[in-house]
Amino acid sequence: MPYSRSSGISRRLVLGALAAMPTLPGLLAASAPAAAQSATPLASWNDRSAKQGILDFVRATTDPSSTDFVPPEERVATLDQDGTLWIEHPIYTQVVYCLDRVPVVVKEKPVLAKVEPFKTVLTGDFEKIAKLSLHDVEVILAATLTGMDVDQFYAEAKAWIESAKDHRWNRLYTELTYQPMQEVLTYFRANGYKTYIVTGGGQDFVRVYSDRVYGIPREQVIGTAGGVKYGYGKDGKPFLTKEPKLLLNDNFAGKPEGIHLEIGRRPHAAFGNSTGDQQMLEYAKGGDGLRLSMLVLHDDAKREYAYGPAQGLPDTKVGTFTQGLYDEAKKGGWHVISMKDDWKRIFAFET
Amino acid sequence: MPYSRSSGISRRLVLGALAAMPTLPGLLAASAPAAAQSATPLASWNDRSAKQGILDFVRATTDPSSTDFVPPEERVATLDQDGTLWIEHPIYTQVVYCLDRVPVVVKEKPVLAKVEPFKTVLTGDFEKIAKLSLHDVEVILAATLTGMDVDQFYAEAKAWIESAKDHRWNRLYTELTYQPMQEVLTYFRANGYKTYIVTGGGQDFVRVYSDRVYGIPREQVIGTAGGVKYGYGKDGKPFLTKEPKLLLNDNFAGKPEGIHLEIGRRPHAAFGNSTGDQQMLEYAKGGDGLRLSMLVLHDDAKREYAYGPAQGLPDTKVGTFTQGLYDEAKKGGWHVISMKDDWKRIFAFET
Repeated sequence: MPYSRSSGISRRLVLGALAAMPTLPGLLAASAPAAAQSATPLASWNDRSAKQGILDFVRATTDPSSTDFVPPEERVATLDQDGTLWIEHPIYTQVVYCLDRVPVVVKEKPVLAKVEPFKTVLTGDFEKIAKLSLHDVEVILAATLTGMDVDQFYAEAKAWIESAKDHRWNRLYTELTYQPMQEVLTYFRANGYKTYIVTGGGQDFVRVYSDRVYGIPREQVIGTAGGVKYGYGKDGKPFLTKEPKLLLNDNFAGKPEGIHLEIGRRPHAAFGNSTGDQQMLEYAKGGDGLRLSMLVLHDDAKREYAYGPAQGLPDTKVGTFTQGLYDEAKKGGWHVISMKDDWKRIFAFET
Repeated sequence: MPYSRSSGISRRLVLGALAAMPTLPGLLAASAPAAAQSATPLASWNDRSAKQGILDFVRATTDPSSTDFVPPEERVATLDQDGTLWIEHPIYTQVVYCLDRVPVVVKEKPVLAKVEPFKTVLTGDFEKIAKLSLHDVEVILAATLTGMDVDQFYAEAKAWIESAKDHRWNRLYTELTYQPMQEVLTYFRANGYKTYIVTGGGQDFVRVYSDRVYGIPREQVIGTAGGVKYGYGKDGKPFLTKEPKLLLNDNFAGKPEGIHLEIGRRPHAAFGNSTGDQQMLEYAKGGDGLRLSMLVLHDDAKREYAYGPAQGLPDTKVGTFTQGLYDEAKKGGWHVISMKDDWKRIFAFET
């Protein structure tokens, strides 16, 4: 019962629910190469100001003769995931995971089949599921993301992410990362930057595949995180259980706060695509010396999706690229990346 | 007014206060080499079972033909700091910092000079200071470690740690790291292990000097951590303020929980010296395959200090090496490192 097609659950609803929820750990992520590196950096980028901005920034901060030189140990770049490194429409991938897990949870606790919101999810009726309240979504996230051994979560999420497919492209979600952004990761790392994912999504969920998909090790993923509880199994061996207790809401001001908790340095470069990334981009840009803040604008309805200021969305919409954010970017010297104009191709599988 | 001599504040009191308190960030730590690497690994160790245990573990987990081989991305070693990597007696270095900061805090808020516990600290009377309650110590920690911009904290703590000296040796605290443990860090890293400090002390405090002193970058320091709050200065630039709000009590079960939060992997090797490290060592040892858990036993009153089971301390004493911990180590196959017998020299400055 995959909910990967547009279920209609709004991004706002889901962002709020994720923010209000803890998540859990991931057990795997074999260390594989990320996107293949091209001899020419940023090969999938058109020669426009966004590309030039990245090249200029990296050169200026890594050339020892530059007044903007940054010592290697201080080179930190932080990147949002959903909508910045891979697709986030029509529904966050992690929420698809949670909906897909509902039948498993109900099988373990059959009484839930008659209880809302599980009952509605089990109908598979997208119209009804889309109308679930924020509280209902929180209940689903808590039921599917907490209560188990962290190793068990890692294993289950790994099995899912290795097989679940998006319905528009009929491809694994992990194939729907943006090739130009993979090239940004590779280019930054080739120049001594440590690359971090700073996501409003679940820290433990993203850690399951970050190394394999982005070349980013588990410990360089910061995300919305719940507490874990130390205990002992029947065999006396210690393990950690995911708890429904929020430790870090990694959205909005929570992004710079989470960066401080898990890195302890102000990033020199930051990438995002929504109001949830606003404070992280301000924080990066507000440091001394040369800084780079960039926003991905989803303006390509044909090759991906179009949403944001170009589509006239209201400023109050949470978790998206509002006109207010666009104005702040222009005023603050941030770069706005037009997917339509700046990217030659969006996905690696495009010919 | 340095309190570096034995002020008499008990370790138990201080551990409790640190645990109940948030701490703050650190701004510096230039990337310098840690202890110089000898061609012979573990040169300051005597040829006894502890040294052999380390050599055997590293060989078995890094030899591709070994059944205990661990892929490079999974090689994680976690080490406590106080009493494991450097001296912790007669008083935690970070608490000396806080006491030394009291006059500065009082200068900024003169009214505090007449208020306890500041009044007592200002007398410089060690007997009286030693009798401060846990609550009093918490008040001092909150006053000296929170309320300021994280960058300001980093700068102040950096200036202090670069000049403050221990009174027994009349040396910088940073010279009082254990040379044999510096060699362990170097040896593990040379074999592809990521080394992490996992301390009950303040995460932000240790991050100020971890790179310079141990070769451990800021982001690989996990410690007791408080929240920070995002805000804007008068110039409109964003900054983070240290808040008196506990996020992570990195002692006891908090150690494996903090490891999960900031790394997301069960360590293959762990080093500690007290009951505050017990769960971390259990957690490491409880994983699949070959694991290494080691306890430093302070049994050398002449070259350093002697405390722990050999000294007949009661089991109930928190934050020290109790007889119960010693028994668990022996039963669980952990190694106990005798400072007296296993270490040829304790400090690098010894000839």
